[in-house]
Amino acid sequence: MKPRQTKIVFIGAGNVATCLAKALSKKAEIIQVYSKTKASAQKLGNILGCSFTRDLKKINSDADAYIVAVKDDAIENVVSHLQLKDKLVVHTSGSVGIESLRKASINYGVMWPLQTFSKNSVLQKNIPFCIEASSKKALKLIEELVKTMGGKAYSISSKQRAKLHLAAVFANNFTNHMFVAAYAILKDSNIPFDVLLPLIHETINKFDKGNPLASQTGPAARGDKKTIKKHKKLLENSPQYLALYKLLTKSIQLSAHAKKL
Amino acid sequence: MKPRQTKIVFIGAGNVATCLAKALSKKAEIIQVYSKTKASAQKLGNILGCSFTRDLKKINSDADAYIVAVKDDAIENVVSHLQLKDKLVVHTSGSVGIESLRKASINYGVMWPLQTFSKNSVLQKNIPFCIEASSKKALKLIEELVKTMGGKAYSISSKQRAKLHLAAVFANNFTNHMFVAAYAILKDSNIPFDVLLPLIHETINKFDKGNPLASQTGPAARGDKKTIKKHKKLLENSPQYLALYKLLTKSIQLSAHAKKL
Repeated sequence: MKPRQTKIVFIGAGNVATCLAKALSKKAEIIQVYSKTKASAQKLGNILGCSFTRDLKKINSDADAYIVAVKDDAIENVVSHLQLKDKLVVHTSGSVGIESLRKASINYGVMWPLQTFSKNSVLQKNIPFCIEASSKKALKLIEELVKTMGGKAYSISSKQRAKLHLAAVFANNFTNHMFVAAYAILKDSNIPFDVLLPLIHETINKFDKGNPLASQTGPAARGDKKTIKKHKKLLENSPQYLALYKLLTKSIQLSAHAKKL
Repeated sequence: MKPRQTKIVFIGAGNVATCLAKALSKKAEIIQVYSKTKASAQKLGNILGCSFTRDLKKINSDADAYIVAVKDDAIENVVSHLQLKDKLVVHTSGSVGIESLRKASINYGVMWPLQTFSKNSVLQKNIPFCIEASSKKALKLIEELVKTMGGKAYSISSKQRAKLHLAAVFANNFTNHMFVAAYAILKDSNIPFDVLLPLIHETINKFDKGNPLASQTGPAARGDKKTIKKHKKLLENSPQYLALYKLLTKSIQLSAHAKKL
């Protein structure tokens, strides 16, 4: 006899929900999808071959786990409609506290994947999931879900998770913006962006080995005023990037100074 | 009979010189190393098994190529002491123009490797070298040197190179500073930095495919004021990183807005 599969309801049908649902559906049974947008609910329902609803009152109460993957701002409202007794209820947000779920069940928690999600994203192997739970039972179930998805669970408090979310903004969103700036500067001069790729990969391979402060190089780090002046001159018609250049140069120098102290 | 190897003199014995000299010494003959610091000259001379000097007047005039890999600020002074007729003279700087070498020889040029160099760096395979030359002869010789080192030559003018150097500061130095900030934020909360590594690798693999503006995600890009407010609050005791957070958020929004126009 086949072991009984975990039954899951997905609340939300956006990029995160779609990606996690696909990863879970290989070993668990997704029985329903909710989205306030009918087209989204229907689309994900069709992908998974399960029913869908846009009515929070029609959420199926037979599941073992309810995964709330809606926008951060919508979590509170969605949860206020759920009365799931002891069923597992988890959200997938980096910046919303665990307590936001306490009215929905006695077994609740957080399962935040550290991956950026866009349309058609596939869940990568060994992605860190920052998890937190209201009970031992909830923790065990969340760990099982993470394992099912091939992820790696890290137990992290809501307070730590907020900090990690902030750090991820620096490491991912702000880093990407650095590439946006570099791309714009090169495009203006008809230089292919590809030329920078080996350097970018090296930037990462270097700090992989430890504290990135030890890998800081460049005109700001070595106090090369002449080059900094040249760069500012080159940016005189780009106030947006000039402002970034100035502040980042100052900040690198502050960090270098703090390191020496 | 073994083909005659290219004879090279290295002017400079720092990280860049050491790394390039090691890469070249497999197929060319380094006959001399100059550094104004005797210990550096001696150290690199010993590694390469060649003579060394700290006197610019004693530079060996029998070489085929002279590679000037000193600090940007020192290039002008060093070059003013060289009278090398038609021998190849190249510098390795990203931000100094080709014309800085014109008094040293009629065959001169630039050979700037797009790699960051620290102590014990090894020259990576297929590193882009931005090259520029005063003559066809110089160009051919520079291309041969790049090939000998396993690099990939890109013909780029001094004006373009200055822009590329600026873009590299964004893509490498400023990116590294984002990791410095993330590291500091996590350290304060006892969260291992390793948790962020898959996300960081993904950031890069994503934009590898095209314009990084298309990969921009996060609270700034989606105008998530609530999360931005939370993040600013978390940074209230870190004026350095708060200033960065504010300006980068603003800049991401400017870019997103410009994209829509």
